[in-house]
Amino acid sequence: MTDTVAELARFNEAGLIPAIAQQHDTGDVLMLAWMNRDSIAETLRTGQVCYYSRSRQKLWYKGETSGNTQRLVQMRIDCDGDTILLLVDQTGPACHTGARNCFYRSVNSNGEIA
Amino acid sequence: MTDTVAELARFNEAGLIPAIAQQHDTGDVLMLAWMNRDSIAETLRTGQVCYYSRSRQKLWYKGETSGNTQRLVQMRIDCDGDTILLLVDQTGPACHTGARNCFYRSVNSNGEIA
Repeated sequence: MTDTVAELARFNEAGLIPAIAQQHDTGDVLMLAWMNRDSIAETLRTGQVCYYSRSRQKLWYKGETSGNTQRLVQMRIDCDGDTILLLVDQTGPACHTGARNCFYRSVNSNGEIA
Repeated sequence: MTDTVAELARFNEAGLIPAIAQQHDTGDVLMLAWMNRDSIAETLRTGQVCYYSRSRQKLWYKGETSGNTQRLVQMRIDCDGDTILLLVDQTGPACHTGARNCFYRSVNSNGEIA
């Protein structure tokens, strides 16, 4: 009997688990978004990353309007089952601002945004 | 007037923000944990990563018992201020299991853990 991600994943009280998207070949951390059971199933079924939008409260097929899709290369889950890592192949920028990834702001040792 | 991370960070209802730790030179995603205002300040003050332990409900100086500390190389914050990325230099394994990182379990297209 093989464990499944649906059994191992520990969802929060809202039924969500954080998912980190990482570009599979460069290692670039692109973004963090949230998944629920259905978005995990959709992602595995289609091979294209689907999140759960907390603001719109529905499945969010990444790139459905922008075209900036994420092809799933590999899904991973952490030791205690409360975070998912998605190795992806990102089409275009991952960030809605047009930046390659969402983490374009750095913080200096005084806490100031560079 | 420069924005600070304390102003930009959007904490959840528990006062926490997810933080991804990434090995600065290899790009290895090590773990995800949570920070509050105090742990961000401690991390910037000391240059060693400090999280907030949800189970113990207190500051968690990473490696304080194991010795597997994370030296902060750079803190980054995402576009909408609700996730932090920590570029770190990890001493020893990041994971409490002894694995180099916490994401040692992969999921196949049927959802089974490999």
